[in-house]
Amino acid sequence: MTKVVLLRHGQSEWNRDGKFTGWTDVDLSEEGRREAALAGKRLKEAGVVFETVYTSVLKRAIRTTWIALDEMDLMWLPIDHTWRLNERHYGALQGLSKEEMVELHGKDAVHTWRRSYDVRPPPLDRDDPRHPRFDPRYAGLDAGDLPSSESLKDTLARTLPYWRERILPQVLKGRNVLVSAHGNSLRALVKHLDGISDADIPGVNIPTGIPLVYEMDGERVVERRYLASEEELSGAKEKAAGTASK
Amino acid sequence: MTKVVLLRHGQSEWNRDGKFTGWTDVDLSEEGRREAALAGKRLKEAGVVFETVYTSVLKRAIRTTWIALDEMDLMWLPIDHTWRLNERHYGALQGLSKEEMVELHGKDAVHTWRRSYDVRPPPLDRDDPRHPRFDPRYAGLDAGDLPSSESLKDTLARTLPYWRERILPQVLKGRNVLVSAHGNSLRALVKHLDGISDADIPGVNIPTGIPLVYEMDGERVVERRYLASEEELSGAKEKAAGTASK
Repeated sequence: MTKVVLLRHGQSEWNRDGKFTGWTDVDLSEEGRREAALAGKRLKEAGVVFETVYTSVLKRAIRTTWIALDEMDLMWLPIDHTWRLNERHYGALQGLSKEEMVELHGKDAVHTWRRSYDVRPPPLDRDDPRHPRFDPRYAGLDAGDLPSSESLKDTLARTLPYWRERILPQVLKGRNVLVSAHGNSLRALVKHLDGISDADIPGVNIPTGIPLVYEMDGERVVERRYLASEEELSGAKEKAAGTASK
Repeated sequence: MTKVVLLRHGQSEWNRDGKFTGWTDVDLSEEGRREAALAGKRLKEAGVVFETVYTSVLKRAIRTTWIALDEMDLMWLPIDHTWRLNERHYGALQGLSKEEMVELHGKDAVHTWRRSYDVRPPPLDRDDPRHPRFDPRYAGLDAGDLPSSESLKDTLARTLPYWRERILPQVLKGRNVLVSAHGNSLRALVKHLDGISDADIPGVNIPTGIPLVYEMDGERVVERRYLASEEELSGAKEKAAGTASK
């Protein structure tokens, strides 16, 4: 059986401050670093060893990866960085708190953006200096791939090709992989692996810092489990619902 | 002009304690972490930006890379890990202090192993649990590639193919690269780039933590400089001579 382990980064500085982050390159908070170290310890205790690691180009996921690999004494593993595992792009909502959004756009609009499957938030202006086209890490991308705002559906659409083309071929060779990423890019994988409907996926919240282990037989999921006790898990799920879609 | 920047990791825990390290996976000391952060600051101040980073599979070089990239706000860069950039394998000398070596093998032998070009120290026994064949990070290698001990010449012989096949093609495409590695794997590159003779290379000591910048026009070195003042450099060179060949 081959393992695919999903790990959602812990608290970032903007999670802590209640601001929507998206593609903003915010670092982990101290609490987020502790969560990453604990994730590494859980994986080490469970005896899970990887051959390849996949993460985004955003430092909160990269730091989570680095801290967890350090705890596992696996710093030497190859790490593949891709924008396709980035968090959902929140467009012009990035940097706003929920309260500011409600004030600017009204409660119903905010609820729709956070909980719908295919509605995009207002886009970031193409001339806004925060637009990804000004960021060197996206310099190699086709202009058409660069989002100014994404629905959850958009995020899935750019994450899944990476699963199919880069991650799955490794899994089919029997190699255990770690995917260390964000709430919404991991939702894309969970939706695919667990066969969750478009209607249900916005309500699925992956806890931060708790490794989710899929045991795979080829492309088929044989078993899924979190590396945490029931009690830890229920606490983490409550917290995850609170920071959902950020 | 394309930049090739060489960075030798700073003090490790065994450098600090005066023990020969080789392929032993010893971490940076606190001093070594400070050196790495300073290297990152120097690169950032010099405005050097990379497209790819190359390092070994040993954590003192990887941590140096991580710390420097963090300082430069370039954590998202691809990092290629390879055993070919590892430190020279010191065979059965690994873990011994210079004093213990002299006691066991005599002063002349120790001098020869440290300062010769093509003499190998006594090999690590193939059944020694420290032998690289028991280490998962070397599992993908041909058995014939796995050293039990290396001369400086051996180290060069396994480092240069990586330069030619992986690093140089990027340089020829005009991409700036960072090579973050060890005293002897970097000697291989310096010997090649600066055309240093077999007789002279054992006496060349690369300072730790100070980026060495080569400006390249294709395969031709146009200029080389350290990112440090003359004063800093002369202090660092003295220190490097003291920890040479470890």
